Order: sequence, then structure tokens, then C-alpha cells
Amino acid sequence: MTTIVVGFVPKPEGRAALRRAAEEAQLRDAKLVVVNSHRCGRSYDSDESVASEAALAEVRQQLDATGVSYEVRQLVRGLDPAEDMIAVAEQVKAEFIVIGLRRRSPVGKLILGSNAQRILLDSPCPVLAVKAEEDEEE
Amino acid sequence: MTTIVVGFVPKPEGRAALRRAAEEAQLRDAKLVVVNSHRCGRSYDSDESVASEAALAEVRQQLDATGVSYEVRQLVRGLDPAEDMIAVAEQVKAEFIVIGLRRRSPVGKLILGSNAQRILLDSPCPVLAVKAEEDEEE
Repeated sequence: MTTIVVGFVPKPEGRAALRRAAEEAQLRDAKLVVVNSHRCGRSYDSDESVASEAALAEVRQQLDATGVSYEVRQLVRGLDPAEDMIAVAEQVKAEFIVIGLRRRSPVGKLILGSNAQRILLDSPCPVLAVKAEEDEEE
Repeated sequence: MTTIVVGFVPKPEGRAALRRAAEEAQLRDAKLVVVNSHRCGRSYDSDESVASEAALAEVRQQLDATGVSYEVRQLVRGLDPAEDMIAVAEQVKAEFIVIGLRRRSPVGKLILGSNAQRILLDSPCPVLAVKAEEDEEE
């Protein structure tokens, strides 16, 4: 069974990536591994823990209706999100990685952040980069 | 019928992109539009014309066996390859764009060139970025 790895953050670009990854998983009868990675160097305090739970609830809400088989990995390992994504993609031999590109508010211009660049360049597999719809913006 | 747009150059990254695009087209029963774009500002002389014919022959060779329906657009419009790709993707309402990421020889390190960055940021649809296998390098 093939596996698709998707990076999730509870933001418009994270939702867009998750939605697209679920569509691709349905199309291929693939399994999803959702990676929710916490930033390097930040302590994992109770506020973040609550935010994580909310993120997890949101992933469940978005995916449960699709019938796609998935697992969520919340990683707090002191690594950059890019490193976490790449490590998971290598481990599960991912078919591809889905990432969302974020907009720099308030102008809404898209930027290619350092994590996106690193995933694009260092991933062991193809990377599908998606954008949130304009009207999805927070 | 959905359409996938793929950028082709007769180099390892172009072949990797074309191969992946053909697989995706088979999976979705989609049509491929192969864009072979000539650089901005260069005159289109007879040498380039010969190179184009060779590129076209290579695309045919790679795709004819797949059974995928495709068209090749060779664009010499004085635009950057990124602009050509985006214009075609808009025109055909592409499901997504496939691009190959190139390696900077001789070290083999991948780079995110300005065309790749622009396509990632400005495309109207998701972008699948693929890499050539190391052993495919020229």
C-alpha cells in the first residue's frame, strides 16, 4: 500500500494540503500520514499542548468523512518541521509529500519559506505544493 | 477530462518530470500538455530548431508507449519558461503542473531555480516537483 505524507498546521494552507492529500489518497487507495511538527527550540508547554489537541481534532474532522485510512504523528523532537517531514517520508517510503504554501499576511502574497524550500530540495520523493484558496484565508 | 501540464527539457530533470506526469495521467485518465519553452530573449535560430525537434522526438518516444493522450506545445514567445507554464496551466485549467528540479553540476546539489520558484508561487494550481534519480544524471 502506498503512503502519502502531508504536513499539517491548523491554518488555511494546512487545511488545503490536507484536503488535497486526502483526494490523492482516495484516488490511489493510499494511506495518509499526517505530520504535525512543533518548532525547533520551543518548549512544549501546556498552551501548545492544547493547540495540538485542537489541531488533531481538526484533522479528524476533515478526514473521518473521507474514508481514507490515516495516522497523525505529532512530533516534538526539536527538529525543524522540514527535517521531521523528510524523516517520516523516508521511514514510510512515501509516494510523495504534500505541503501547503503559506501567504504572508496581510498582503496575501505567497512566499516560499525555508521549510518549504528544504522539503522541496531534500525530500526523498516528489513534493506536491498546494495553496489555500484566497477566500480560505484567515 | 482533466489536464496535467508538464514542463519538458531534454535533460534528466525533464525526463523525470515527464515520466511522473505520464504516470499521474494514467492514474486519472487525464490528458497531458507538454510545454517545451525557449528562453526569453534568445533568437530562435536553426540550431535551436534542431534541438527542439530532438526534444520533441524524445517526448514522443517516452509517451507513445504509455497510451496517454498528449499534446506538445513548443513555445518561443520571448517569455520566461515560468510564464509560459503558468499561461498554459491557466488556459487549460490544469489539475496540476509537474516540474523537474535540476541539479547544479558537477556537485549534484539540487537548486530551486528562479523558474521553479515562480511556478510554485504563481501557478493557478498545485505543483508537483520531482527530481531525477542520481543515476539518471548526465
